[in-house]
Amino acid sequence: MKDHLVNIGIIGLGTVGTGVARILLKQKELLHTRSALTFQLKAISELDWSRNRDLDLSHVKCTTNADDILLDPEIDIVVETIGGYEPAFSFICKALQNRKHVVTANKALIATKGRELFKIAAANGVDLMFEASVGGGIPIIKGLREGLVANTIESIYGILNGTSNYILTRMHQDELEFGQALQEAQAKGFAEADPTLDVGGGDAAHKLTILASIVSSGFVDFGSIFVEGITAITKLDINFAKSLGYTIKLLAIYRLVEDGLDLRVHPTLIPNSHLLAAVNQELNAIFVKGDFVGDTMFYGPGAGERPTGSAIVGDIVDLSQDLLLKEGEQSSKRTINPDVQVKTIPISQVKNRFYLRFFTLDAPGILSKISGILGDCGISISSMVQLEAHEKENYVPIVLITHEASEASMEKALQEIRKFDFVKENFLRLRVF
Amino acid sequence: MKDHLVNIGIIGLGTVGTGVARILLKQKELLHTRSALTFQLKAISELDWSRNRDLDLSHVKCTTNADDILLDPEIDIVVETIGGYEPAFSFICKALQNRKHVVTANKALIATKGRELFKIAAANGVDLMFEASVGGGIPIIKGLREGLVANTIESIYGILNGTSNYILTRMHQDELEFGQALQEAQAKGFAEADPTLDVGGGDAAHKLTILASIVSSGFVDFGSIFVEGITAITKLDINFAKSLGYTIKLLAIYRLVEDGLDLRVHPTLIPNSHLLAAVNQELNAIFVKGDFVGDTMFYGPGAGERPTGSAIVGDIVDLSQDLLLKEGEQSSKRTINPDVQVKTIPISQVKNRFYLRFFTLDAPGILSKISGILGDCGISISSMVQLEAHEKENYVPIVLITHEASEASMEKALQEIRKFDFVKENFLRLRVF
Repeated sequence: MKDHLVNIGIIGLGTVGTGVARILLKQKELLHTRSALTFQLKAISELDWSRNRDLDLSHVKCTTNADDILLDPEIDIVVETIGGYEPAFSFICKALQNRKHVVTANKALIATKGRELFKIAAANGVDLMFEASVGGGIPIIKGLREGLVANTIESIYGILNGTSNYILTRMHQDELEFGQALQEAQAKGFAEADPTLDVGGGDAAHKLTILASIVSSGFVDFGSIFVEGITAITKLDINFAKSLGYTIKLLAIYRLVEDGLDLRVHPTLIPNSHLLAAVNQELNAIFVKGDFVGDTMFYGPGAGERPTGSAIVGDIVDLSQDLLLKEGEQSSKRTINPDVQVKTIPISQVKNRFYLRFFTLDAPGILSKISGILGDCGISISSMVQLEAHEKENYVPIVLITHEASEASMEKALQEIRKFDFVKENFLRLRVF
Repeated sequence: MKDHLVNIGIIGLGTVGTGVARILLKQKELLHTRSALTFQLKAISELDWSRNRDLDLSHVKCTTNADDILLDPEIDIVVETIGGYEPAFSFICKALQNRKHVVTANKALIATKGRELFKIAAANGVDLMFEASVGGGIPIIKGLREGLVANTIESIYGILNGTSNYILTRMHQDELEFGQALQEAQAKGFAEADPTLDVGGGDAAHKLTILASIVSSGFVDFGSIFVEGITAITKLDINFAKSLGYTIKLLAIYRLVEDGLDLRVHPTLIPNSHLLAAVNQELNAIFVKGDFVGDTMFYGPGAGERPTGSAIVGDIVDLSQDLLLKEGEQSSKRTINPDVQVKTIPISQVKNRFYLRFFTLDAPGILSKISGILGDCGISISSMVQLEAHEKENYVPIVLITHEASEASMEKALQEIRKFDFVKENFLRLRVF
């Protein structure tokens, strides 16, 4: 470090990059008071300078060439806020190889290319930080790695995708169907034109990969996570869940079990008395259980220019501490060991309580046939709702909640039930918290 | 530091000290994996060694003389878990003067003697850490100082006293009177034999002093905080609040306003839709609004051997990073500047919405007289409940919720209303979130 001046370069001035620049310019004095360091936004690289971002960049080098940052020997910390895989990946590699610390919010990249990136960082004696990649402005990564460092983390239940939570909240509160709620989310800017990654669960799985890697001090394969999105949930299911005292949320789940990690993303019925059931709109929350601390929860905005900027600047201040370390020392709090492969268990070995919703014809003995198959597979029913058919030949919904059963047994039972011609194809299986 | 071995001494093996020892012994390997450092519990000083704590201390020096820790040149970090003012204060001073980092959970000491202690720490180039002093196992201090470092903190609303929250929860959920709920809390170990500091609001005010000092990078005088406890709240008030859609919680409030900080501890009516209203039993939660991050919340257990131990060990791992710093450098994230006096505003300048509950005789024109005085003081009524008297000469409750008004106006109005002989003396004024 040069006289306690920390030079920062931002690559990519979209929503998040703009937030970082705004904070570094506006809070310079505050950051100096709090850290006794001067954070200097030295350069920004961006291809499209036409957009008005309401920033005074008169003292910042503005360029279209990322190398102006990546090769500048004075830059201590590079902020990557381009998003996506390329050129973000190459830029981060180059920054690390040039012995610059890197901060990113790029969850897809960390989740799928983290192993490579952390190896390059370690080999070059620098750090790669990513607080903003999970939970937006919520300091959950710091909370897990440092605040709860004394704990073996036993479970994490996270509402990590704001788009899905917004859609489910609207479906709950205003009885919208999924499609209507999605359209509204898109109109309000909470969902992208192609919402697949959000409503399909992939985004939450990226974030879960990151959280699971942190708490297990190894690296989790993104591909090992079971993922199910929220697209099959109907207004009817929301209402059934409501009448049974549950709220449906898309949860990213980490559980430390005997044989490894149980990692999955799927919609889940949460009892209304649980704090997670009260996390609404586009907000995020992460419920964490540690063996010493017990139950904790971290809540806040999961996205947006200002919250994400807040998290990235938190990382920048953290990294600046590395610049004060003795020669040869490395900050020791940020250990994801990319060489350690974390063992996960397949979904078939997991046990859950299930919510099942069928549409069936109103014929005699249907319920006994369904419950018979469930019983044959060792699955017992905890509660049941069957509605009356008002006309013959009409399909009516039956909803069952089961006691705990293995996913494998449930899969087998559903294969059998599917064969009945009085059961319509579009049944739904959800899991209960 | 000696070869990346961090030597720790604990002074006081009560509930909290036992938790710290248990974690250091049980999680040694986990902490090594996560930090690449070896944390060695070298010595414990305690006067009463007769208690069985279920700890294997065969490799720990057990002493009754604190100097065996305070004067041991090999000890890097001293954990003070005696509690109270003396000898805790003297021990911490001596440890700092001997250039040992100190970790404590002692909120009363930090809140009232912090200015002196931080000066001694700074003068000796060591750190004094106190994560466990607020919110038990919740990493709120780290969250505010590091995670949200980029933010000017605009407001904090904290449920910081587990005893009071337990009592209020029992009053809400099971219609107990204050005295009954307190007795139960004492029987369950959630309240002390002398509960004054908890139910009187003093404990929450200690914690608020600490939080306000952190976020303002200065030092707040404990004496400048307005404090009101929960002892005057009756089952009747709880039920009125409930019927109006509110839950009563003891809140510690920090608000950054134009002329300084508005700091107070008092019972508050919180709308049921707010997440804080769902924080029940002995649990704590801190709702924080930052200018960039927006609304966040941190939730978890506010006390107990294991959660408090978790927070203290988090501090120990943090402090170990200081041992890797270059000669002459100091960790720059922990700035409470004891020389900066933080300006607070008196309660009379604060504006609030109020809940007022009177017992009055059922005589004609009473309501118009009360509302007349409120009106004269510029206070307008937002909602009102008056119950019917079943017998003459019986006092009946009247409950009013006002629009926003200054505390000074309300004080004036209450002085006038108090003069009416149809109003019983034991009226109650609460504040609305």
